[in-house]
Amino acid sequence: MRGSILLQTMELRELPTPALVLDRGRMERNAERLRRRLEAGGVPLRIHVKTAKSVEAVRHVLGGRTAKVAVSTLLEAEQFHAAGFLDLLYAVGLAPNRFERVAQLTRAGARVTVLLDGLELAREWRRFCRERALEVPTLVEVDTDGKRAGVRPEGAELLELAEELSSGGLFGGLLTHAGGSYGSRSPEDLRRFARAEREGILVAAHRLRGQGLPVPTVSVGSTPTALFSESYADVTEVRAGVFLFMDLVMAGLGVCRLEDLALSVLTSVIGHSADRTRLFVDAGWTALSRDRGTAPQAFDQGYGLLCDVLGRPLEDLVVSDTHQEHGTISARPGAWLDTERFPAGTLLRILPNHACATAAQHGAYHLVDGSERVLGRWERFQGW
Amino acid sequence: MRGSILLQTMELRELPTPALVLDRGRMERNAERLRRRLEAGGVPLRIHVKTAKSVEAVRHVLGGRTAKVAVSTLLEAEQFHAAGFLDLLYAVGLAPNRFERVAQLTRAGARVTVLLDGLELAREWRRFCRERALEVPTLVEVDTDGKRAGVRPEGAELLELAEELSSGGLFGGLLTHAGGSYGSRSPEDLRRFARAEREGILVAAHRLRGQGLPVPTVSVGSTPTALFSESYADVTEVRAGVFLFMDLVMAGLGVCRLEDLALSVLTSVIGHSADRTRLFVDAGWTALSRDRGTAPQAFDQGYGLLCDVLGRPLEDLVVSDTHQEHGTISARPGAWLDTERFPAGTLLRILPNHACATAAQHGAYHLVDGSERVLGRWERFQGW
Repeated sequence: MRGSILLQTMELRELPTPALVLDRGRMERNAERLRRRLEAGGVPLRIHVKTAKSVEAVRHVLGGRTAKVAVSTLLEAEQFHAAGFLDLLYAVGLAPNRFERVAQLTRAGARVTVLLDGLELAREWRRFCRERALEVPTLVEVDTDGKRAGVRPEGAELLELAEELSSGGLFGGLLTHAGGSYGSRSPEDLRRFARAEREGILVAAHRLRGQGLPVPTVSVGSTPTALFSESYADVTEVRAGVFLFMDLVMAGLGVCRLEDLALSVLTSVIGHSADRTRLFVDAGWTALSRDRGTAPQAFDQGYGLLCDVLGRPLEDLVVSDTHQEHGTISARPGAWLDTERFPAGTLLRILPNHACATAAQHGAYHLVDGSERVLGRWERFQGW
Repeated sequence: MRGSILLQTMELRELPTPALVLDRGRMERNAERLRRRLEAGGVPLRIHVKTAKSVEAVRHVLGGRTAKVAVSTLLEAEQFHAAGFLDLLYAVGLAPNRFERVAQLTRAGARVTVLLDGLELAREWRRFCRERALEVPTLVEVDTDGKRAGVRPEGAELLELAEELSSGGLFGGLLTHAGGSYGSRSPEDLRRFARAEREGILVAAHRLRGQGLPVPTVSVGSTPTALFSESYADVTEVRAGVFLFMDLVMAGLGVCRLEDLALSVLTSVIGHSADRTRLFVDAGWTALSRDRGTAPQAFDQGYGLLCDVLGRPLEDLVVSDTHQEHGTISARPGAWLDTERFPAGTLLRILPNHACATAAQHGAYHLVDGSERVLGRWERFQGW
């Protein structure tokens, strides 16, 4: 079962449960959709590998090639660099206890780009780089939706930071992430978030250029805005990760259809409630995560949507609760769960709210392509 | 850093962040508290190792000895058996795709006890055991609070199941878990759940004995009921796991004090919101989990309570949101967060809602004992 070699005859029912299942055909179509969209917009993609955390998965959608990637941990950077990926953007604010590890990666030949948003930290980082004669392109994070980190496009801090980095030869440009787009309620909302993301970072870039500072990188991204932006003009790259697998949150936002979801958790029925209103499966929060990303959406999917073993949704049945190794399956209000249909041992699949969070609970993907046949296995890595 | 050997001089600030920190002294005191309680009650403890998932941690609180343990996965069973633990209760409903693995463990010399609650499954399991001449003690799960799996103490299924197993020479007794106790609102509630758990299973045992069926094992447990039960009479063992570490959910239930919490996540400040009302740390849901166990409690702790590097709570500051590698720190309503006090790189610790869920996100514990000195490292295992 190691590597991607499997016996020809392996079927889903031969896997131990719970197990993470990846529909390779769906993933390929999801990748193709974003590729076409960005190609038409004339902007390159920088795949965010925080969702897949698998060199094999990313190589597969790149047709065996390498490409520029974004990472959320230095472990991702090290793993992808070891696999031949040279251009790595560490898209989480840098902390001093990571300086040395970034330096090591750079000395090992990686082109690492880092991110920060605080002046004191920028000074510390500049001193560190000067002492070691390091040239690490450093982006300033811009906050375009008040959701997370970053400086305001119109604020004084932006200029101070860019000048501090620039005088140390480190300033590489700007980055923003429209995390607020996850709260969209309509396609118009998604377009509005994409517009705000792009316009915000362009305001910041324009101000810096007005001060004579070159801004080589203008990096935007999130799966919803990457797919719904009406313009990518003057943006130098788009980051996205969850687009590869999609999930119930993305379907709830209208970013994809339910039949685009490539990731699911294979599970076995292990019992029923005494009153026969609920079913218990062996996918608890260790297999699904505790993510409740669809809770604020119009259509709450609990901890996941139940499917048959082929991945076809049983739309009235959701994971209503999770314990460590138990998932509770209930019917939605007004619907009815016939527990007799699901004796102990029945194999089912669960579509996750949040692909990143569910995948993070597992050490490997088991590949299928629309049938019960297991085509291979791709390893994932965990930790930092 | 491997094993439990560390350089004498290692301090918390030398660890990469995020990192899981375990206060060994607190864990020892928590273990001692339950040990004394159960000793006074005259009932043996069966430690549930699903929380620790570490042979070293469990051996430590057992003073280097082995003992009977409960497990939530067969991987836990295999790991503990390999370390010399012979009596293993697999306390999650059995599924047919795990029969063979249980058989292997049994053949390897483990005394494995399993659990089920369905008649069809019991028949299938009996056939399996007969064909392989296996004698695996099998418990029937009893539902004493309507919360999870199990048959009712007063129902017909209990007798059918026990008779089916008994005629195959497999019936080992009864098990119940007062998961409902997590919804307690007062010490009186906790005592009531403990009473209901014990009385429910004793009703079931009495009925079976009345039919001439011996009931050797009467297994109850959950950390709240283990600590608050007023009587353990006629119970043969108490299972508990989270008592070793305790967590904010347990503190919110009144089961422990905040200063008993042994587990925390070490984290670094990586940025501030543009409006200076929030702080960002490098402990996101990959480090904390998405568990919101204190949300329904009187005192909602967000995704965790912020502490200084020594683990002393900064009681007005909580993790208000989590992204994959970002935790957002906010002040509680009415309080104020002075972001100037926490420049990028500041080391902090976060007390988790749910020890099992937070520990599950990590590959190792870093041991301290009230100071910043790191005393060792214990490996954890993940997966199934």
